[in-house]
Amino acid sequence: MTANEMPTKKMPSPAPKSLRATHPFDDDKLHEECGVFCIRGADDAAAHAALCLHALQHRGQESAGIVSYDGRQFHAHRALGRVGDNFNSEEVINRLPGRAAIGHNRYSTQGETMLRNVQPLFAELEFGGLAMAHNGNLTNSRGLRRELVRRGCIFQSTMDTETIIHLIATSSYPRLIDRLIDGLRQVRGAYSLVAMSHDQMIGARDPMGVRPLILGEVDGAPILTSETCALDIIGAKLIRSIEPGEIVVCSDDGIESLHPFAPERQRFCIFEYIYFARPDSDCEGLNVYSARQRIGAELARETGIDADVVIPVPDSGVPAAIGYAAEARIPFELGIIRNHYVGRTFIEPTQRIRDLGVKLKHNANRDAIAGKRVVLVDDSIVRGTTSRKIVDMVRDAGATEVHMRIASPPTVHSCFYGIDTPSRDELLAAQMSVDEMSRHIGADSLAYISIDGLYRAVAGEDRDEAAPQYCDACFSGAYPIPLVDHDGGEATMQLSLLAETA
Amino acid sequence: MTANEMPTKKMPSPAPKSLRATHPFDDDKLHEECGVFCIRGADDAAAHAALCLHALQHRGQESAGIVSYDGRQFHAHRALGRVGDNFNSEEVINRLPGRAAIGHNRYSTQGETMLRNVQPLFAELEFGGLAMAHNGNLTNSRGLRRELVRRGCIFQSTMDTETIIHLIATSSYPRLIDRLIDGLRQVRGAYSLVAMSHDQMIGARDPMGVRPLILGEVDGAPILTSETCALDIIGAKLIRSIEPGEIVVCSDDGIESLHPFAPERQRFCIFEYIYFARPDSDCEGLNVYSARQRIGAELARETGIDADVVIPVPDSGVPAAIGYAAEARIPFELGIIRNHYVGRTFIEPTQRIRDLGVKLKHNANRDAIAGKRVVLVDDSIVRGTTSRKIVDMVRDAGATEVHMRIASPPTVHSCFYGIDTPSRDELLAAQMSVDEMSRHIGADSLAYISIDGLYRAVAGEDRDEAAPQYCDACFSGAYPIPLVDHDGGEATMQLSLLAETA
Amino acid sequence: MTANEMPTKKMPSPAPKSLRATHPFDDDKLHEECGVFCIRGADDAAAHAALCLHALQHRGQESAGIVSYDGRQFHAHRALGRVGDNFNSEEVINRLPGRAAIGHNRYSTQGETMLRNVQPLFAELEFGGLAMAHNGNLTNSRGLRRELVRRGCIFQSTMDTETIIHLIATSSYPRLIDRLIDGLRQVRGAYSLVAMSHDQMIGARDPMGVRPLILGEVDGAPILTSETCALDIIGAKLIRSIEPGEIVVCSDDGIESLHPFAPERQRFCIFEYIYFARPDSDCEGLNVYSARQRIGAELARETGIDADVVIPVPDSGVPAAIGYAAEARIPFELGIIRNHYVGRTFIEPTQRIRDLGVKLKHNANRDAIAGKRVVLVDDSIVRGTTSRKIVDMVRDAGATEVHMRIASPPTVHSCFYGIDTPSRDELLAAQMSVDEMSRHIGADSLAYISIDGLYRAVAGEDRDEAAPQYCDACFSGAYPIPLVDHDGGEATMQLSLLAETA
Amino acid sequence: MTANEMPTKKMPSPAPKSLRATHPFDDDKLHEECGVFCIRGADDAAAHAALCLHALQHRGQESAGIVSYDGRQFHAHRALGRVGDNFNSEEVINRLPGRAAIGHNRYSTQGETMLRNVQPLFAELEFGGLAMAHNGNLTNSRGLRRELVRRGCIFQSTMDTETIIHLIATSSYPRLIDRLIDGLRQVRGAYSLVAMSHDQMIGARDPMGVRPLILGEVDGAPILTSETCALDIIGAKLIRSIEPGEIVVCSDDGIESLHPFAPERQRFCIFEYIYFARPDSDCEGLNVYSARQRIGAELARETGIDADVVIPVPDSGVPAAIGYAAEARIPFELGIIRNHYVGRTFIEPTQRIRDLGVKLKHNANRDAIAGKRVVLVDDSIVRGTTSRKIVDMVRDAGATEVHMRIASPPTVHSCFYGIDTPSRDELLAAQMSVDEMSRHIGADSLAYISIDGLYRAVAGEDRDEAAPQYCDACFSGAYPIPLVDHDGGEATMQLSLLAETA
Repeated sequence: MTANEMPTKKMPSPAPKSLRATHPFDDDKLHEECGVFCIRGADDAAAHAALCLHALQHRGQESAGIVSYDGRQFHAHRALGRVGDNFNSEEVINRLPGRAAIGHNRYSTQGETMLRNVQPLFAELEFGGLAMAHNGNLTNSRGLRRELVRRGCIFQSTMDTETIIHLIATSSYPRLIDRLIDGLRQVRGAYSLVAMSHDQMIGARDPMGVRPLILGEVDGAPILTSETCALDIIGAKLIRSIEPGEIVVCSDDGIESLHPFAPERQRFCIFEYIYFARPDSDCEGLNVYSARQRIGAELARETGIDADVVIPVPDSGVPAAIGYAAEARIPFELGIIRNHYVGRTFIEPTQRIRDLGVKLKHNANRDAIAGKRVVLVDDSIVRGTTSRKIVDMVRDAGATEVHMRIASPPTVHSCFYGIDTPSRDELLAAQMSVDEMSRHIGADSLAYISIDGLYRAVAGEDRDEAAPQYCDACFSGAYPIPLVDHDGGEATMQLSLLAETA
Repeated sequence: MTANEMPTKKMPSPAPKSLRATHPFDDDKLHEECGVFCIRGADDAAAHAALCLHALQHRGQESAGIVSYDGRQFHAHRALGRVGDNFNSEEVINRLPGRAAIGHNRYSTQGETMLRNVQPLFAELEFGGLAMAHNGNLTNSRGLRRELVRRGCIFQSTMDTETIIHLIATSSYPRLIDRLIDGLRQVRGAYSLVAMSHDQMIGARDPMGVRPLILGEVDGAPILTSETCALDIIGAKLIRSIEPGEIVVCSDDGIESLHPFAPERQRFCIFEYIYFARPDSDCEGLNVYSARQRIGAELARETGIDADVVIPVPDSGVPAAIGYAAEARIPFELGIIRNHYVGRTFIEPTQRIRDLGVKLKHNANRDAIAGKRVVLVDDSIVRGTTSRKIVDMVRDAGATEVHMRIASPPTVHSCFYGIDTPSRDELLAAQMSVDEMSRHIGADSLAYISIDGLYRAVAGEDRDEAAPQYCDACFSGAYPIPLVDHDGGEATMQLSLLAETA
Repeated sequence: MTANEMPTKKMPSPAPKSLRATHPFDDDKLHEECGVFCIRGADDAAAHAALCLHALQHRGQESAGIVSYDGRQFHAHRALGRVGDNFNSEEVINRLPGRAAIGHNRYSTQGETMLRNVQPLFAELEFGGLAMAHNGNLTNSRGLRRELVRRGCIFQSTMDTETIIHLIATSSYPRLIDRLIDGLRQVRGAYSLVAMSHDQMIGARDPMGVRPLILGEVDGAPILTSETCALDIIGAKLIRSIEPGEIVVCSDDGIESLHPFAPERQRFCIFEYIYFARPDSDCEGLNVYSARQRIGAELARETGIDADVVIPVPDSGVPAAIGYAAEARIPFELGIIRNHYVGRTFIEPTQRIRDLGVKLKHNANRDAIAGKRVVLVDDSIVRGTTSRKIVDMVRDAGATEVHMRIASPPTVHSCFYGIDTPSRDELLAAQMSVDEMSRHIGADSLAYISIDGLYRAVAGEDRDEAAPQYCDACFSGAYPIPLVDHDGGEATMQLSLLAETA
Repeated sequence: MTANEMPTKKMPSPAPKSLRATHPFDDDKLHEECGVFCIRGADDAAAHAALCLHALQHRGQESAGIVSYDGRQFHAHRALGRVGDNFNSEEVINRLPGRAAIGHNRYSTQGETMLRNVQPLFAELEFGGLAMAHNGNLTNSRGLRRELVRRGCIFQSTMDTETIIHLIATSSYPRLIDRLIDGLRQVRGAYSLVAMSHDQMIGARDPMGVRPLILGEVDGAPILTSETCALDIIGAKLIRSIEPGEIVVCSDDGIESLHPFAPERQRFCIFEYIYFARPDSDCEGLNVYSARQRIGAELARETGIDADVVIPVPDSGVPAAIGYAAEARIPFELGIIRNHYVGRTFIEPTQRIRDLGVKLKHNANRDAIAGKRVVLVDDSIVRGTTSRKIVDMVRDAGATEVHMRIASPPTVHSCFYGIDTPSRDELLAAQMSVDEMSRHIGADSLAYISIDGLYRAVAGEDRDEAAPQYCDACFSGAYPIPLVDHDGGEATMQLSLLAETA
């Protein structure tokens, strides 16, 4: 929900330091922005939600929320910070009674991490309560929002989810499901949403199925969530993915499937395979770890070079590096050690410390590097700031050559479908040729996998130019869903007049 | 905003102990529920708001909030707890920049002290932002709320103020002031509200002027607030009270006064003089301390008895006791010492401790009491629990006789105009005769001032039966404003389906 | 324990603002520095301690601690802040099991409020554990401390109490009581200390009995504490004061009384009657409230002047003002209203706010003042900062004359016996004549009670020049106990090399 | 410092849940208990300390402390929790001024994580301040402690370090270095300690050099610390390891080396290579990552079996698994994915959740496992609880065979030299044969590396039975340093009578 939720840069009050859970070093990755979960008809529903949100922590680390329903009343707990820091006590879970629960993890850019933007959102509508959580980003929400305000709707947050809820609230249909369809027909964008009313659990996916959403089951209770790793943690079973454009309604009458929108070819986000999804998840039937290994192998075939050792940039480069090393028959070594304690922010207190940069998180393992020709494998380069420091560090550790290999094509376009990307002028590959980038980061050589190579590794076939099998807009610029707000100039409209401090 | 804001008693999650700022001992008082403040055109506007809210702390101790406007954006800080605990640092004040600010103190009954109910409320309407704070209680808000939800409005809180904001948001008039008048024409109840938009500061008082609202000024900047003591703390001057039914609009064009409602005779809350207002405030032109002294003198005249010493129940009984003692020519003594450190809750940790009860807060000063006939003066009796303990304590300290004198008529009816009152079956005076009460609290005698005596002390004349000069519904049962929700059975409707935990 | 505990002014790290519990406005009072409590043989011993420390909160507001003993082990909880904020939950009390408990309240000057200085102190000696709490100040502790360090003792705090504990630890006597006597024979100063071992509760008072210490009893369990108000809160009974130079030992064998020191005439601190003790306490058999009234009456006799109203500076001036008004037959009015919510610090966030000064805490009640000749009664003037603001405020409220009357002689000397006093050059009365002071504070006249007048009011007779009945060094400069450190120049020795931050 | 610091099990008050930084799942590892650091003569000394302690976080995660010296005064900040959570702001670092700083990380078993046990310890001795931090465990501290108490020393903590400080304080030598030598001559055990006075930085290592201690340098400022990874993070250079029995004194006069003890053959802890040290550190000249790879290769040679895939138990089993896979020519796969967000405790709120156990932290990557014969490589088995769950999980994921291979010999003895080990009856290998263990954990086979194999991998030669090159007591039971307290029955003496709650 990046673009739409971000107020223009007038906000004078930065989030308190203690809330910035992401280290600057992480900033050179794109960020998935949400993980969602919903369960209906299970004991300990909120405890299940907490566990599954924990398994989905990589999809959003700045806030988490759970709403439960106990048959009479809804109960909410929402907090800034990680799941494990906020939903870790019996006391908190006990305050979320009931056999239905919905949950959400959220990643948020600095400055707008406010409690009022923590999901799930809850609204009391004519027919009762409705809680909703959303992964994705609408591309026409600003126009919709302006029209809704004109009609007297009062927005409490800057989130797309609230736009959908107001569309539901003001729809003239009597039934919730018809109101939801009525609302979704008006929106454009990528969305995988889950909703919980007093008698239904609903999941919906945009017609192109850009963001993931799956249906699972544990002890007879249906589950809607983002990734299979969330099912694994509670011993639940995958039933199937929700289809693009499908709406499923789970109630006491069973599970009903609706397809109210005109069918379109699926355009699942290919970057989920490259970086976003957890390696132990299956996305759209494909195991992510295996896909990354195959990408690494393809990368070796396309960009192979004589070398002594293959070293991943941990942790995200590891599976591709294993695939690369096996294909290239070069030893795989953990030549860079990551300090996992930095998961929690270590704010550098002085300028000298800030200058030390990369070493807070990574350290070169000199013994595995010195005197060797090194292939460094990473999943992507965004701004290039980290790559540069990593190459320096490896060279300082005695590498005779440093060859950087990237397990994705150059990232040259911003994402408008629910991924936090810097603007184009911050994307290194949008500003430089590969040769320039190689010099910029100080490598002896730099090479990316081709887009067809990526498709072969993931889909087993080249990209279909006429009708690409995936959404790859960040590489190709081919945006499958119209960017209404952006193209209409609405993206720079100030979304909120309020800066709330906590 | 008592009755309307209280969800029905289904709420399973009590407020955390640490948030209960009021000691059980205090429960035997009625509670004013809000203090409001707004200033426009002053440097340090938020700092002024913080100071004035501090001066109004007695009108609401459970939460406080300030919204400022800096010419481009609104800034909010709202917190549970006292003003001095939350708005006490330069850092917080700096996060509230601008020359206009609006603030609110809130008292809240246990269980519903939630951050989402902390005022001022803020909404972004078609024409820009609007912050609003409200002292009072609507008597038809449940019906209005149901209708607004039917039209698609989404309520975030259980507060009356939000009802008014939705009426404004959905009004078809183009100008804010017309929308406000349109909205207020639909509401019934007692209200003194202040609002702040990007270019206006607005104050409005219900047609009977039940709750206080005054206009002041400091260094040319107009101020709207609840009591004169809030003006004193910043060296501001009183201009006048806002009239019943008046709406004042302060903008760059000066101060405009509107009277859009049919005129009615004022019915100012007489209990403000008895207990709610600070003794150093003037309400509707009358000094509160002097009024209390006159009430005490009248009480002595009406209920005088032979005694050796007049002792106030501190602190609220002091002015009346001084008036009583002077009139009765009996020595005034501080025979009961109050431990002011209990302002902050001292939660009693064990049953034995709870049984000790009253002594946490009060201690008899044996030397001033032993062997004497004591007149105890208190402002009111609500449930009688405290009175009983106080009488016991005074007797234990050696009093030979204990005569309780009350500086108000018996409290026999609940308030629906913004005061937190227990239901009638908890009001001691609604359940017992004065004689029964006297025996119940263990006094040798008990006497109240008459309602005419009260009017004479406050207004200088007897109560006008046909058209009472004040609202005295808690004594007389004569409710000047129709209790629409209550009489229509709406008061027990569950206001919110959501229990949010913090 | 002021002087000795204060490190010299090198400390660069001020206590965090949130810990400064005292408002600048309070700075114009002298401060008692400790309250102590010990009980042995009672159920809920720690809960009793918490309550009694709460009743003694006025003797120390910056930290509180309780150590209990459960027959096998000691349990401690010590915290910065007030009793009611730290010992207010069943959970905390449950962590302090046992039938014996010792507790301490501490006032501390800014900058040295560190957890390591929170009492009671606990040490494990050869024979077992020993917890100790102390009210007073040693006048030769620096020399003793230096000698102990020379012998290898390691000090953890800067408190006198630790000096006594090291003297006990290094004493060559086998029994605790002999070690304590051995240690106390080496110290000079004013002290009222309580100690708790596994089988004894001990109380000791210096040979002149400067600070209070009493023996009480509840349900057969003996109690040692500072004031009778601590007994009242738990329904305990006073047995007697501990005598000057007496040591009492409470064990399973009963209560033993020892008098190991050469007898001296008692010199109880006369300021306890003027300001330190709670008005509902009896000190050395005399009720404090009554003493203050008599002082007020004597003040009226000595300094009477024609006036229309007597107004106390609240709260400490009230009893004397009542006595003054009754004696002078001038009406007593609460012409200044105190905002009790300032008990908790309200840090002024901006300079303009700081300039507002006094009004945060006090407001003039114009109606009671305007057009009148006012006698203002206060208990003392220390720096004079507050008096000046109060006089201004009263004059602004319309007083035609303002006559300040002080219920103690001029404070011209520092206290070295356990009271926090500014140095002499900050004491207004040490720098100016009474006339100069009157002009300085802007009063029409200023007068103090004479020292003989004070003695007459308290003791019923004039001061015995040859052998004064009380310690009145702050007025007379007659220090009954030698100021060894101070006269030897040790008082400026840096007590600690460590600045610990929390 | 395990055994000695642990009070006997009477402590009734467990550490608050929020402080338990270690997940139950981690309990099946032995734990290094401390990391130390000291620097002298550098700008930003405390910031350097914070960074280096962060790099040493794996050596102690429950508390951290830094003491700096600014030329006049010492400054301390000590806190429960991680370095990055407590030393992460400019404000904290600024409170630790000066060009010399000493720091300490501490691991602590549940229940005794008390602030009073957080190092560095600080004492004011006759000659000035002394701060000390210690990695290791004394084996005769209880006897020493008892004797010191007998002489009047008062202990504030239950740490060995304090024993050493009291020995220094009570030594009769005039110079600090002589006092330290005097003290160390009386102690037995394993220790690597660093100390900082106003004019010296001192490092000392026990005569067998069991725990690591190295000398480094940055910009001319000497550094003493535990591992080279702490040097890397600030760009410092390794000079050399401190020799067994060596004391180095760094002052303005340079670096002086003393060898005051009788020389002994070094017995460095071999487990540092197996698990404790960071893989990117060099210990005693040997790279840890390489050592682990060689151990894995040796393990493959000794215990090789036909299989389809080698899977490490992450993260500690990874280097050995890489070595194993390369030697065995079997593909290496990340078949188990670790959720790094569990670094922070995720307290399981309900029994059902607790039953889910291992999946909170690990998830099997079904695609890499299903249908395959799996070799699982882990560094050690302590209680076996985790191994059992991991084997189950891998089998559930479809493995046809599961062969567990352990990169260390069976852990059958407790460590008394500074490692937190469970008692022998909790060590699985002390209770069962390897075959029984294999059945217990549900593996198809289980095999450990031999002790000679381990020595060959680490030292390049078999174990010298007569004079082992390393301390391997946990495998062999050959304790090189006498266990004085333990053999004398002192280990069960209650170390502290005080339970302090925070």
